[in-house]
Amino acid sequence: MRRLWHWPIDPRARTVRLALGEKRCPFETIEALPWAPPHDFAEIAPGAEAPVLVDTSGEAKVNAVGTHAIIEYIEEAHPSPRLLPFIANERAEARRLWRWSEESFSEVNATLLTERVNQWVRRSKTTDTTTLRTGVHALKSKLSFLNALAETRTYMAGRSLTIADLSIAAHLSAYDYFGDMPWDAAPELKDWYSRIKSRPSFRPILADKVEGTRPAKHYADLDF
Amino acid sequence: MRRLWHWPIDPRARTVRLALGEKRCPFETIEALPWAPPHDFAEIAPGAEAPVLVDTSGEAKVNAVGTHAIIEYIEEAHPSPRLLPFIANERAEARRLWRWSEESFSEVNATLLTERVNQWVRRSKTTDTTTLRTGVHALKSKLSFLNALAETRTYMAGRSLTIADLSIAAHLSAYDYFGDMPWDAAPELKDWYSRIKSRPSFRPILADKVEGTRPAKHYADLDF
Repeated sequence: MRRLWHWPIDPRARTVRLALGEKRCPFETIEALPWAPPHDFAEIAPGAEAPVLVDTSGEAKVNAVGTHAIIEYIEEAHPSPRLLPFIANERAEARRLWRWSEESFSEVNATLLTERVNQWVRRSKTTDTTTLRTGVHALKSKLSFLNALAETRTYMAGRSLTIADLSIAAHLSAYDYFGDMPWDAAPELKDWYSRIKSRPSFRPILADKVEGTRPAKHYADLDF
Repeated sequence: MRRLWHWPIDPRARTVRLALGEKRCPFETIEALPWAPPHDFAEIAPGAEAPVLVDTSGEAKVNAVGTHAIIEYIEEAHPSPRLLPFIANERAEARRLWRWSEESFSEVNATLLTERVNQWVRRSKTTDTTTLRTGVHALKSKLSFLNALAETRTYMAGRSLTIADLSIAAHLSAYDYFGDMPWDAAPELKDWYSRIKSRPSFRPILADKVEGTRPAKHYADLDF
């Protein structure tokens, strides 16, 4: 059995769900709020934070914590379909952009996404508009880089779907949930996202409902 | 031929040098200042930042950008000696702590290390003491976590040396260069570091001299 501790709107947890979905690996989910990590985590690994995958489906139990450990592990255990290309140079490019996405978007997560969560989920009485603006600005600068990639490549890292596409789409989907994606400013990226969004692995992400929130109208719309 | 673009004091670049050293893979280095990325980078990959490894020693050229892509690549191309354990659960723990180290220390790099570089290398006229203090505080909180790990484990991720040890030691070595490591507050961690520091792969790191700076007196001392 595979068990994933996650918080539905967390872009990194979404990346793991998409990867498991692409590989058709069934899994159970347990919700883990970022501001209240479950007690089980201390037993799994000291200092563990979601996403956490515990896999008892193989010969030996595997505790994998964080996207890097989880995704490299499922790629090794279930190589088909590949999320890292066979050719070393293409693998390196997929890993570079996957990591780029997690690091670059962490600023957007810490500002824009955190403010939206405070606003809607945690019902904070005040909204920090400076932080929101910083987040919107950070997001736009990342989108122009990604739009330029989407102009010249079918998928983010090249000719085939890789973990870089899943990671980038997972992040954008979380911002899109709150209606924060300026799609008109990034038309090539929008085309690419609409292809990723139509994949069966994306359906559970589009069905997410976070307590206290309502997704933006076009959020689950494949023709947005 | 392997060519590494790096900046000697950068903890992530040091991690790559240590990994190549452990695997006895010879490589050339080219200095790449973080504030003046080389023009070659645009050709290697859009938006590339150091460390960058270009490997033409195999059948096909590989451009790997960033620690994740570089180290997973060299582990695949040169599996011996292993920097990721054979057993899946242990691999996951090594990857978790490797990633933990890069993410947790990024705050220390952005504050303490950046201030030291501004102070000594870039000869900034003013030192931001608030930022320095924030950095020292952030560093201390990470060290207590690591000291607790070192109390119960021979190596950071368990019984054998892994990439987690190299990454953590690479970060600490950069802070130690400027005399910022409060070793007395973390005795078990100091023991562990002195073992890692004695490895042949560490020698080039201990010989580093960054223009405009002088390393702390004990920096290269194996019995510090």
